[in-house]
Amino acid sequence: MSNEYFKGISKIQFEGAESDNPLAYRFYDETRVVGNKTMKEWLKFAVAYWHSFCANGGDPFGEPTQSFAWNTKSDAVDRAKDKADAAFEFISKLNVPYYCFHDVDVVDYTNDINENDRRLQALTAHLKQHQDASGIKLLWGTANLFSNKRYMNGAATNPNFHVLAHGGAQVKAALDATVALGGENYVFWGGREGYMSLLNTNMKREKAHLAKFLHLAKDYARSIGFKGNFFIEPKPCEPSKHQYDYDCETVIGFLREHDLLNDFKINIEVNHATLAGHTFQHELQVAADAGVLGSMDANRGDYQNGWDTDQFPNNINELVEAMLVLVEAGGLAGGGINFDAKIRRNSTDPKDIFYAHIGGIDTFAKALILADKILANSEYKALRTKRYSSFDGGAGADFENGKLSLTDLRQYAIDNGEPDMISGQQEYLENLINRYVL
Amino acid sequence: MSNEYFKGISKIQFEGAESDNPLAYRFYDETRVVGNKTMKEWLKFAVAYWHSFCANGGDPFGEPTQSFAWNTKSDAVDRAKDKADAAFEFISKLNVPYYCFHDVDVVDYTNDINENDRRLQALTAHLKQHQDASGIKLLWGTANLFSNKRYMNGAATNPNFHVLAHGGAQVKAALDATVALGGENYVFWGGREGYMSLLNTNMKREKAHLAKFLHLAKDYARSIGFKGNFFIEPKPCEPSKHQYDYDCETVIGFLREHDLLNDFKINIEVNHATLAGHTFQHELQVAADAGVLGSMDANRGDYQNGWDTDQFPNNINELVEAMLVLVEAGGLAGGGINFDAKIRRNSTDPKDIFYAHIGGIDTFAKALILADKILANSEYKALRTKRYSSFDGGAGADFENGKLSLTDLRQYAIDNGEPDMISGQQEYLENLINRYVL
Amino acid sequence: MSNEYFKGISKIQFEGAESDNPLAYRFYDETRVVGNKTMKEWLKFAVAYWHSFCANGGDPFGEPTQSFAWNTKSDAVDRAKDKADAAFEFISKLNVPYYCFHDVDVVDYTNDINENDRRLQALTAHLKQHQDASGIKLLWGTANLFSNKRYMNGAATNPNFHVLAHGGAQVKAALDATVALGGENYVFWGGREGYMSLLNTNMKREKAHLAKFLHLAKDYARSIGFKGNFFIEPKPCEPSKHQYDYDCETVIGFLREHDLLNDFKINIEVNHATLAGHTFQHELQVAADAGVLGSMDANRGDYQNGWDTDQFPNNINELVEAMLVLVEAGGLAGGGINFDAKIRRNSTDPKDIFYAHIGGIDTFAKALILADKILANSEYKALRTKRYSSFDGGAGADFENGKLSLTDLRQYAIDNGEPDMISGQQEYLENLINRYVL
Amino acid sequence: MSNEYFKGISKIQFEGAESDNPLAYRFYDETRVVGNKTMKEWLKFAVAYWHSFCANGGDPFGEPTQSFAWNTKSDAVDRAKDKADAAFEFISKLNVPYYCFHDVDVVDYTNDINENDRRLQALTAHLKQHQDASGIKLLWGTANLFSNKRYMNGAATNPNFHVLAHGGAQVKAALDATVALGGENYVFWGGREGYMSLLNTNMKREKAHLAKFLHLAKDYARSIGFKGNFFIEPKPCEPSKHQYDYDCETVIGFLREHDLLNDFKINIEVNHATLAGHTFQHELQVAADAGVLGSMDANRGDYQNGWDTDQFPNNINELVEAMLVLVEAGGLAGGGINFDAKIRRNSTDPKDIFYAHIGGIDTFAKALILADKILANSEYKALRTKRYSSFDGGAGADFENGKLSLTDLRQYAIDNGEPDMISGQQEYLENLINRYVL
Repeated sequence: MSNEYFKGISKIQFEGAESDNPLAYRFYDETRVVGNKTMKEWLKFAVAYWHSFCANGGDPFGEPTQSFAWNTKSDAVDRAKDKADAAFEFISKLNVPYYCFHDVDVVDYTNDINENDRRLQALTAHLKQHQDASGIKLLWGTANLFSNKRYMNGAATNPNFHVLAHGGAQVKAALDATVALGGENYVFWGGREGYMSLLNTNMKREKAHLAKFLHLAKDYARSIGFKGNFFIEPKPCEPSKHQYDYDCETVIGFLREHDLLNDFKINIEVNHATLAGHTFQHELQVAADAGVLGSMDANRGDYQNGWDTDQFPNNINELVEAMLVLVEAGGLAGGGINFDAKIRRNSTDPKDIFYAHIGGIDTFAKALILADKILANSEYKALRTKRYSSFDGGAGADFENGKLSLTDLRQYAIDNGEPDMISGQQEYLENLINRYVL
Repeated sequence: MSNEYFKGISKIQFEGAESDNPLAYRFYDETRVVGNKTMKEWLKFAVAYWHSFCANGGDPFGEPTQSFAWNTKSDAVDRAKDKADAAFEFISKLNVPYYCFHDVDVVDYTNDINENDRRLQALTAHLKQHQDASGIKLLWGTANLFSNKRYMNGAATNPNFHVLAHGGAQVKAALDATVALGGENYVFWGGREGYMSLLNTNMKREKAHLAKFLHLAKDYARSIGFKGNFFIEPKPCEPSKHQYDYDCETVIGFLREHDLLNDFKINIEVNHATLAGHTFQHELQVAADAGVLGSMDANRGDYQNGWDTDQFPNNINELVEAMLVLVEAGGLAGGGINFDAKIRRNSTDPKDIFYAHIGGIDTFAKALILADKILANSEYKALRTKRYSSFDGGAGADFENGKLSLTDLRQYAIDNGEPDMISGQQEYLENLINRYVL
Repeated sequence: MSNEYFKGISKIQFEGAESDNPLAYRFYDETRVVGNKTMKEWLKFAVAYWHSFCANGGDPFGEPTQSFAWNTKSDAVDRAKDKADAAFEFISKLNVPYYCFHDVDVVDYTNDINENDRRLQALTAHLKQHQDASGIKLLWGTANLFSNKRYMNGAATNPNFHVLAHGGAQVKAALDATVALGGENYVFWGGREGYMSLLNTNMKREKAHLAKFLHLAKDYARSIGFKGNFFIEPKPCEPSKHQYDYDCETVIGFLREHDLLNDFKINIEVNHATLAGHTFQHELQVAADAGVLGSMDANRGDYQNGWDTDQFPNNINELVEAMLVLVEAGGLAGGGINFDAKIRRNSTDPKDIFYAHIGGIDTFAKALILADKILANSEYKALRTKRYSSFDGGAGADFENGKLSLTDLRQYAIDNGEPDMISGQQEYLENLINRYVL
Repeated sequence: MSNEYFKGISKIQFEGAESDNPLAYRFYDETRVVGNKTMKEWLKFAVAYWHSFCANGGDPFGEPTQSFAWNTKSDAVDRAKDKADAAFEFISKLNVPYYCFHDVDVVDYTNDINENDRRLQALTAHLKQHQDASGIKLLWGTANLFSNKRYMNGAATNPNFHVLAHGGAQVKAALDATVALGGENYVFWGGREGYMSLLNTNMKREKAHLAKFLHLAKDYARSIGFKGNFFIEPKPCEPSKHQYDYDCETVIGFLREHDLLNDFKINIEVNHATLAGHTFQHELQVAADAGVLGSMDANRGDYQNGWDTDQFPNNINELVEAMLVLVEAGGLAGGGINFDAKIRRNSTDPKDIFYAHIGGIDTFAKALILADKILANSEYKALRTKRYSSFDGGAGADFENGKLSLTDLRQYAIDNGEPDMISGQQEYLENLINRYVL
């Protein structure tokens, strides 16, 4: 490493719960065994290239507040290599095992597809060297099909085939890069795959194009040897008024309808879940129940504001409930915990980006520890199992097995009279959780 | 009719746009031809038994404000017959062709299933007489599986099979009544089919029970000769924290997964759409695109408040956009426009319930007229068709027909260079609509 | 106590953090000293009569699920005494020092004012006996001016003076009862003081009436010797579309405009804060800054739903931030922590109401302990003080003291050039808090 | 005018309701008399410099989509003059009488205050020439204290006095420019005057600084002869988590507390009203009742999304209710209707900006015409007056005049028994409005 970008910061280490070092982990220890896996296996933390090395603090009401030392060279490829050096320095110091990127995070693109491919290949080689040297791996790659102005009306769902074709070119190159780097997964976030106004939109045709596009991408990836998962990342709105991948239920329905359920799973983002009117844990459970709980984008929203604030996670109650779902599901199918989160625009100290990640990682780690304890030591699971026990035998099981008709149900109700009222015990369960949290 | 409950009010008539009689229709004229159908065929207005003849103005913070002259007799069946008399007097005077009910709207239920069935049958006979005498028809029937305390944890999704069985008994009787009355459709609104807390919930098992339950109901209904549609009515939350029939996409996914798409369509409520984060017209379009646009529950929410206010519709812009979808879809599959709306708790004049319906009906009628004109006379449809024309031939059509690979897309993009920027023309289209509205 | 209503439950005791007894306190110990006060002095927990002894589980979609053993007698006063007996048994067993009530919680009202006064006086005497015997005190009293149908258009803001006068009669009696019971405060929650539709509302006149009404109530109370605080409880909406006491800023502005700031303070409810688009801690800070932080209604809302769910508090992060404000403000001005929270409709076990309160109380107690530690031991306060240090001397102090003009500011800016960027350190501070929470 | 930027577009003319020319006004005719004023006097339409001539279609997820022909020159002042030429060409062709600007809309700023002042003065002279030649006037000026990175923690409320001083320098220059151009008003929108995190914020001190700052600005402006109004523009959040000027009630309370009510009025934006949980008409009424209804920022939000979408207004129902308040209030105190609205990012046709303004202007114009008719010809006002008639004489008037005590109210209630239930007639009134709209 020729330059050191994050000076004065050493590799972040696990120091234990009593540490008051703000640049240490108090709970995250990758070798710690939780249940039947190590913490590293459960959580597979990843750093997001775009927020940490590209986002400059600009917002709709203000100019950038961050200027990056790695963004100074005039040649795009040289500049991109500096950024990669900074990224690997940061990820190494942060001491996490994975990273994620969009194509245009890695290197600036032009309007010339061949030139873009050349650039991305140059950076792929550079990143590969870093990976080999550090042991850091690519959790997933993706293509940004929403920032370039040509995608203002969507990419795979653009009303103009010509734009869709450009999206295809970009995805091909991003798949090539992901495979070259041994990326474990590939993600689709439908940035502008949706609509601004229903008045000018043929929603049915656009969604059919999206399905077709995903099939083409999958077929190509498989043809070049990609064995990993494809992920769809749901979001209800923003930047579009309506995004087609609204939430997990919508995405699962779409994948089923278009015969994509075998290859695609879901990457769930906390802030996208809450913008869609769901808790994070709800979305995790929906995906887990359908066998498509693939990965997580870790962040949090602001419950009083209605846009995607992408703050770093810090709420222990929210994450314990999420980790309960994760642990019961046996973990993520291929993915990990990617910090799709950004420091606030006015967090301009060089250390802020470390603090932010450390806080988020430690909250996840502590939540995992607590969830495991709750599942292993408390009556939490047993209470739920017992609640459904009337379906484990007798007439309830007959119902589940299709042996009863509607008139049979009626007869059962008459024969057995008015049922007892059975408490849902919600407050008892909330206290049970807090017996571990507090 | 032995008693007259709505004294001093004559049958509401169409008087034309210049009328300033608040007890007349200015736009709704059932025989008026709009496009290729009469207004009556397009809209099939229905009165909801529950809001208009049962709801008493009570809310979570206050006692009832309404006392109904038809609610005085001590015998439940006698009282119910008075209510039916009042209902048919109202519907006849309102001059609309349909009504809708839940079982317990029609007659009070006990905890004795046989007694309940006897009561409902008595009222079915009474309602049938009214139908025959008036020509008014039953748009749809349903069973209320959420008000009785036994359903506090759900009905078809209750963790206790015993409660589910009671739900089955109630649905059987409601189907019997619907068939006996020639009801054209049957609706399921999943009142408490959802959860209050994920901590005590096996969502996957509950949803499987719901699917099974719907199959049993469908099979029974078909066995007794019911030829109509089954409708699911989506709602995202309230009274439950999360309702399984969240929105149209969720319901369609569920119906497809559980092999129910051939028999079930969707009944879309305006206020439920907006609570789910969608416009009404979005939900209509989603359903229409899937071939399941069955019926509508007409009302409106309050955009500043977050609960189901069920106000009468009055916004012409919102309804014109809805009617554009309806007319392009060719109308509703079997259903109609049911006023699932209630007068405000402090609307205590006897005439208020008339004003409320007249206002809603006229806004729908005017919106239909405008939507038809926009579609027939303006460039609205042509602009949208043209927007997708790149897929109607050449490489775009090849893509739609599965003849292109991802690498073909890339080559097309290279060959054709950077695409032109094509405006979405949203403001132009909004003005085009308002050229008719204003 | 003639009857025991909560059988098998003993007085809830402090057992310490290691206890796994669900009917014990793990953190709440009224004699524990936190900073310069006991926990009892900081928190003054109170049980709300209405939710715990009156609310029956009914909601807009369903009938009651609770039946209370103290609600069986036919005579209203006898029945009310049984309820009082149950209430004091519960509060004693819960081991908290206060309770709160509305007039109609205590005894059912009729339309006869003299009879109502007689009833309330009878119960006042009965409650006084219980207070004397148990040492439990009345944190505050209030009159319910929203449930009776006569208040459907408001009470003090009703367009009809006749209704306003009834509100006055009720408040007079409630003030008499509060004084007779040594109530420490008196609360106004403007249930329907607001509007359903602006179309029929003279907002200015209604708000002037409200101010006048509050003056009359205050003058009367002072005339009968009431020395305590009056509280206004803000809420943005529900049951009204808009409530005049929207949030703390609105209430403070109203009190200032109408010369009520000397006698009135604010009672802040968590769920009302979040419905108004604020965090709980924001509302506390606004009130504290204006010197009107009077009391709290403890509960929590559901961040995904838009109505007043009044759940028991259980989020440690939210409450630690609230307690930071409380402790820095030096505590509440006269009030306490009233559990304006209800168990879920399907929490039908007799013990559920205990679990709910214990969980809420312990979360507050733990939050208080943590907030005190953060303030005493960490750099939390010092960082904030330092952030504003440029105003503690020099030109900044001159600005604060009114010694600079706009042109002086300009000259200072020119003389001192471009300022440094100073990080807000938000993530660092969030981690600092979590160093204590996790 | 040396260059023509909007080629092929002639001056937009009033052509009447039957016109189907999308580049004509159907309702806006500035000389038309509505009630006792011309349409021009009621509405005073203004074009916003920032959205129409500066905003380039960039959003948090994508690059600019617009490139402006007037943005090509390398010298900042030359470039700014070209922009001014384009602006006056547009405003002239749009045929509206006013415009509004921030300092940095007019010309790019540097970090050198003297250089900035020189630039702004150069442009002021240039704009003055355009004003004189065209008759177009400046509705209001303002300074942008939120886009420069130095304001990331606020301007007048920045914790660092040094930054506040820079804000002062900018406001001084903007006031100078406004006065030089005969600007009729001056606006403060508190872009980042609020907080991102309460953890690092001394809210009380920041708000005191804001009040002091406003006093200094006002004093300076009066000293240089400014006779116009100062406006505060409320917004609840975005870009800050919380903005101090949350809504009208909050601003009015602040102005009253800090003795600013004589000089400041309010500029109300539709989308800010709805983000704060209010209707537009509610905010107008609150301001009108306090005598501070100064001006409007015309746009609309998206009811399903939670950020500031700033779309052009097009809903006739919403605007008729707004115009009812405006007309009853006698108009705006000094201000006008400024289109703080932007075309969608994908509206990239040169004509789109014309369509957008024409649609918004015509909807306002039609709404004004309807509101005037409703007030002049219907029973709308009389119904509301009658609703409060019990306070116009007798005991109600005595209450208003302070002649009654709480015990007098009680006696009145006893003497007069239970009041009648009086309907709020909401649905009747909604229909009454729609009798004019439909």
